[in-house]
Formats: sequence, C-alpha cells, structure tokens
Amino acid sequence: MWSEPQPFVVSVSVKTRGCDGYPDEDSDESYNLSVSEGQAVLRSVTVWGALRGLESFSQLVYQDDYGSVSIIVDFPRFAFRGLLLDTSRHYLPLHAILKTLDAMAYSKFNVFHWHIVDDPSFPYQSRTFPDLSNKGAFHPFTHVYTQSDVMRVIEHARMRGIRVIPEFDSPGHTQSWGKGQPNLLTPCYKGDVPSGSFGPVDPTVDTTYKFMESLLKEVKFVFPDSYVHLGGDEVSFACWQSNPNVRTFMEKMGFGKDFTKLESFYMERTSIVWQDVFDYHERVRLLPDTVLEIWKGETYQAELSRMTKAGHRVLLSAPWYINHISYGQDWRNSYAVQPQNFSGTEEQKKLVIGGEVAMWGEYVDATNLNPRLWPRACAAAERLWSDEEKTLNADLAFPRLEKFRCELLRRGIQAEPLFVGHCKHEYDGL
Amino acid sequence: MWSEPQPFVVSVSVKTRGCDGYPDEDSDESYNLSVSEGQAVLRSVTVWGALRGLESFSQLVYQDDYGSVSIIVDFPRFAFRGLLLDTSRHYLPLHAILKTLDAMAYSKFNVFHWHIVDDPSFPYQSRTFPDLSNKGAFHPFTHVYTQSDVMRVIEHARMRGIRVIPEFDSPGHTQSWGKGQPNLLTPCYKGDVPSGSFGPVDPTVDTTYKFMESLLKEVKFVFPDSYVHLGGDEVSFACWQSNPNVRTFMEKMGFGKDFTKLESFYMERTSIVWQDVFDYHERVRLLPDTVLEIWKGETYQAELSRMTKAGHRVLLSAPWYINHISYGQDWRNSYAVQPQNFSGTEEQKKLVIGGEVAMWGEYVDATNLNPRLWPRACAAAERLWSDEEKTLNADLAFPRLEKFRCELLRRGIQAEPLFVGHCKHEYDGL
Repeated sequence: MWSEPQPFVVSVSVKTRGCDGYPDEDSDESYNLSVSEGQAVLRSVTVWGALRGLESFSQLVYQDDYGSVSIIVDFPRFAFRGLLLDTSRHYLPLHAILKTLDAMAYSKFNVFHWHIVDDPSFPYQSRTFPDLSNKGAFHPFTHVYTQSDVMRVIEHARMRGIRVIPEFDSPGHTQSWGKGQPNLLTPCYKGDVPSGSFGPVDPTVDTTYKFMESLLKEVKFVFPDSYVHLGGDEVSFACWQSNPNVRTFMEKMGFGKDFTKLESFYMERTSIVWQDVFDYHERVRLLPDTVLEIWKGETYQAELSRMTKAGHRVLLSAPWYINHISYGQDWRNSYAVQPQNFSGTEEQKKLVIGGEVAMWGEYVDATNLNPRLWPRACAAAERLWSDEEKTLNADLAFPRLEKFRCELLRRGIQAEPLFVGHCKHEYDGL
Repeated sequence: MWSEPQPFVVSVSVKTRGCDGYPDEDSDESYNLSVSEGQAVLRSVTVWGALRGLESFSQLVYQDDYGSVSIIVDFPRFAFRGLLLDTSRHYLPLHAILKTLDAMAYSKFNVFHWHIVDDPSFPYQSRTFPDLSNKGAFHPFTHVYTQSDVMRVIEHARMRGIRVIPEFDSPGHTQSWGKGQPNLLTPCYKGDVPSGSFGPVDPTVDTTYKFMESLLKEVKFVFPDSYVHLGGDEVSFACWQSNPNVRTFMEKMGFGKDFTKLESFYMERTSIVWQDVFDYHERVRLLPDTVLEIWKGETYQAELSRMTKAGHRVLLSAPWYINHISYGQDWRNSYAVQPQNFSGTEEQKKLVIGGEVAMWGEYVDATNLNPRLWPRACAAAERLWSDEEKTLNADLAFPRLEKFRCELLRRGIQAEPLFVGHCKHEYDGL
C-alpha cells in the first residue's frame, strides 16, 4: 500500500527585484532554506541566491515521514567560480555548450569563461569583421557561433545565474585572426626578407589599434558582462625581434631591447589577463582593477603572494587544469587545492576572488567533453562554494561526490564514474 | 552544374555457403575487391571475407571521373583480433555493447571477449543458478544480462563476423559469485576461527566441481563459440593457506606447500586462460591446445618466447590495455607493438594467433566507454589486421587514423579527437 501523496508547498521570497538583470561579481548568492513537513521556505536577497537555493532544494531527497525539519543557511565562499571551455582548438557545437551550462548550474558554478578564439580557429562570427570567421573558422558555416548562437548561450547562462566572460586572447594566440584580417599580424623575417610566416599582432601600427578598438567595441556590446578576458599569455618575442619595423618602433619609443615593454604598451586595458602580463610588467603600468589569472602550475602559491601584495585581485586556475588527465582517481587532486594558503596578510587573502576550472581543447571536443568535465569539475566547484575545512578531505568527499555523480546521470549529464560501482539510473549509452 | 548520378553495380560472390554459420578461428576473412568505372566486384571464399570486403568498400571514397580502377587484395595478419569489455566493475547497458560491436566491425575486430562477471558484480542471468545474478548483480532487474540480452549480443556480433568469447574467471575474482552460491568460496580463517571473509573458489570440495560443471555446461550451450575464457588470474593464496580444510586437502593430494599445484588441479580445462596459469604451472599439466593470454606489461616479449617454446598458442594483450590513459597522444604507443618481435623460431612466431585490446572497467562505464575506446582501439586493430611494416610508424598513421576517426563520428560513434582539428561532421553533443 502506498500512502497518498501529500501536497508540498515551496514558497520563495526574494528581497530585491532583478529577474531581467544580469549577474555580476557583486551579486549576492546567499540563501536561507528551511524545509519542514509539507512545506519549504526559501528566502534570498536576490534572484541569484534564489536560483542557488532552488538548486540545493532539487538535490535534497526529502523524507517527511518523521516530520523532520532542516534548515540550510548557505552562501558561496568565493564570488568567482568559473569554468573555461576552449572552442578554438576544437569546435564545440552549441548544444555541448548549453549542456555544460546546465551541469555548471547543478554544481553552482557562476562564470562561464568562453575561450572562444585562438590560433587554430576563429569561430566567433563578428558583425564588424565577418571575414575573421569566414576565413579563420574551421568552416565558415558549420563551425561558427553566429550572433544568435552567442545570444542563446548568454541567455541560457543568465537564466542559471551564470556570467559569460568571453576571451579574445591577443597579441599572441592569434594565428587564425590573421587569415581574415590582413596586416594584423607581424610578418616574421629571416635575415632581411619576410619569411612568409606571421607572429603575434603587430603592435607598432595604427591599423592594429583601430581594428582592436572596433572588435572590442562589438564584443563589449554583444557580451553584457563587465569583464572581457584579453589573454596576453605566451607571447613569443622572436618574430617581433626579427621584424625591422618593430625594432625601429622600439627605438623610437625608448623601449630599448625590452619587448615586455612593447607587450605592455599593447595590453594597457582594464580586464582579466593571464598572469604573464603581471610577470613581465610588474614595473610597468597595469591598471589596479585588472584581475590576474594564474595558470602556471608549479609556483602558484608564490604568484598568489606577489600579485596580492601588489594589490591585484587574482583568480586561481593552475591546479584545476582538468583537461590534464591521468589514470585513476585524479579528481582527488582538486580537493587538495587551498586558494588562500599562501604567505600574506588577511587583506591579501581577500584579494583572491575565486578560481576557475579549465578544460583546454587540444584533446577535447564534444565527444569526450562531458565525461572529462564531470564529475571532476564538481570537486573544484565544491571547494569554491563550500567551507574550506569541511571539504578538504577527499576520502570524506568520495561518497558525496559519488552520489552527486549519479544525480548528474539522472539529469542526463554523461558524468564518468569515480571508481567501481553503479548508479540506480545508468547512462544508457544511446 | 552537377552531373547526373550514374548507376553503380556492386557484385558480391562468395565461394562457400554459410550465412547462418558462426565464425571461428579458422574462418577465412580474405577478400578480393576490384573497383572500376560503374562497378565493383567483391570475391571471397566465405561470408566473413565478404563482410570485411564490404566494410572496406563502404570506407572508400570513390571517384570515377577519371575511370580509375583499384584492386584490393586484402587479408588479416592475425586470425584473432579481440576487444575485451568488463561488465562487472561497471554494468554496461545492452546498447553500449551493441554499439561497441558496430564500431568493432568498422575496425575489422573479430572477437568480443566478454569479461562478463568478476568480484564486484555478477550480471549474467543464469538459467541454472538464477541466484548468482539475483544476489550478485548490482541490481537483480536493471543491472543484469538476461538470456535474451545475451542472444541479442551474440547475433549482433555474428552478423558482423564477430565471435563472442565469454569469460567466467575463477577461482579468483569470484566475490560476487559467493553471494548467490553458498559454500562456493573458501572461508578465510584468522587463527582457528573463520574470519567472516571469503577467498577464491574452494577447490577441495566436490560441490564446487558439480556447480562449475553445471554452470559451464550452460555457458557452453548459450555461447556458440568453441572457446570459453576461464580466467585463472590473480589468485591470492593467503586465504587458502589460512583454511585448515584446504591444508588437509593439500597434504592428502601430496601438493606439499605448493598452492600453484592446487590452482592447477582446479584449472585443468581446455580454454583460454590468463598467463598466470602458465607462469605457475609450467611443470604441471596444461593441455597443449590451451591458448594463453599475456596481460602483464613489462615482460611480455620474454613471456611470448617462453610460452611459444612450450608449444602453446598465445594472445598478446599486455601492451593494449587501453583503459590506462595518459594526457596527450597516447594512441601512439599502440602502433609500436610488435607481437612477433621476440626471440624464437619461425614456428614459435606462428603460435602468436593475435592480440586483444582490453578496456577494464575500474573507471569506465557507458558514460566514457566510447571516447576512451575510439579511435584508440583502432590503432591496435590496424596492427592486427594489416602488414607489420606498413603500419609501424605512428607519424604516418596519424592522418589515416584522423580521417578514420571522422568516419566513425559520421557513423555515430563518439570517437575522441587525436589532436587539434575538426571533422566535417562533428559529434553534436546531444
């Protein structure tokens, strides 16, 4: 005999308006959820907090037989909990991105860092410069993101309280840009003659700045987020050095032989940049509200210390480059990360605004994205949302993450197993 | 302007009957395919050769504008080209197995080694002993292979010229068997009292042999292949040693303290077994037509040499344990394998009947099976089918494998990328 299902009332009250708003780094994501017999009450200051609370509520297996009451007061440890997808090394069809956003919401990620273009391909279909994708995408029709695709990603994300930060990485990582935009890249020289190959963006000519201004104006219009990630990483100076025009420009500007000054001259913008910009330009101008993202693995504690000492806000990504795989339970490493464990003052520690899981695309496309991301990314998500001490132990996390992985499967996310075992509802392989 | 499509005639002629037959290790898979303007002629001795030829034909991009003629005379290098799936550590839904068989046919694999049961679960639903899966499967209804499931796998495989060799590994790897079959496993002792845990199958009691005889009788009836893989690997002797009845039995049989003799006593059957049976029992009885499978990585050349010297046919699997993953282009390792490169006579080399790709299930289920298998398994498949010298170089294989991977995608197989790039038809992530 089954008992009659009882009506269950969930009431949600949100203090401020903003259903049509866009989340930002100051968004209050805290919520207060109390569940008792026959009803749940969810209170939050903003709609974003309400979304997080509803997500938690959906994950509760509720038993009211004993009239149990549970009260959850929950809030994120870090305001920036990001995930990077790389759509240049391989093209990710729109549905793969939307599905990733769904799974991000289940894990309470709130920033989608869209590394949309890079050397191998330029899939962003620009209104101002359509040739960038016409000539720089893997295919001009099937391997591009149209304006309507981009809108759909942004709205799908917003409905889940997720910001979309696009990255247009320059002056390096721009080989694909050069195909659709003549005279943008620096011609490399072999001796006195151009070698036929091209280096980073040419920072010595006015046309470069006019182009970048127009492109970024469009990008800032299309993407509502206040951040645009401008990359700035891994700039090779060899090609610049080989080019006689660049050398003349260096002399004229009084940069001597210091090409980091040339990069700095180019990079002067307010935005998130990769750590290289700081490493090279500590004594050069870098606007104080630039957010720095740490990606180099071995020395990240030292970098955290130096950058926050200089007053910069930082994002930690290095230990969560989960495109790197190894055999076995490598998700355990993600639990060991302590973003605020570096030598520095309390003030410095507050400058760590969060972290980011990175899924670079050398070996990843829609065929293996989901099992490689999930549930491995959840470990970082938990570290970024929850209490530091309570989530540090991977052995204690194991049953929690295993259960959550089955929940992801039930919701149609192709999340891979942590170890031997089973879920009630398996992925059916179709 | 497009020219009118021309009629294209494919004629297939097969010398012998046998459409309703079952492939075996002596099946002739060779074929002769000639393609010329407007027609293709495929000739083979058996239906299995015709299947291989049609597969090749389907992969040809045919251009008849220049009236080109191509003639393919093709045959496998090794008669045994296997792939192992493990359905005990994780349950693989039926569709995942059927899809794997499809992809196997595309790569001309011809043996599906079904490691169907093991310690963690017993999903095979036996007619004779239904409690084995009722109590030993992860779930008695949702995580089992019914008789009709097994029939479907066998017929799906047969239609693709693939044999199905089931593995019922014992006397070790049988923890799940013990749940549904009382008194099968050896009770381990702590001092003079049973510890409550169980070891391998108890080889000292008649009931064990009666049970095994009934079970294997059923298995040999259900699976039409002439081979049953009986495992025999990784038997821990500690539990046997702790058990006073086993020690008494050892004395009675005159085995002294040599537990390998006890295992050998148990294993005396004609079948494929893992190499351990040979390693332990070189001087003990092992029927000469037993096929030995090499799974230990470091020393496989030496094992090949020793086993073939003893006159045994061998299967090489050790270097193709592709459940082991590492970051980057690890598919390259599979091309370096040379199954006949060991010290021995020509006669010995002929005893290498083939090889097998293994996808063990510790970290694999239907969520990540396909991208982990494909196209990585294709590298081994090519080594096992094609000419040794022509396929040894991984750099030369790269564009070939990349193209084949796109072909797999087009056919709906979630095959992961080898490196940066794209396919015309991407997997859509749905």
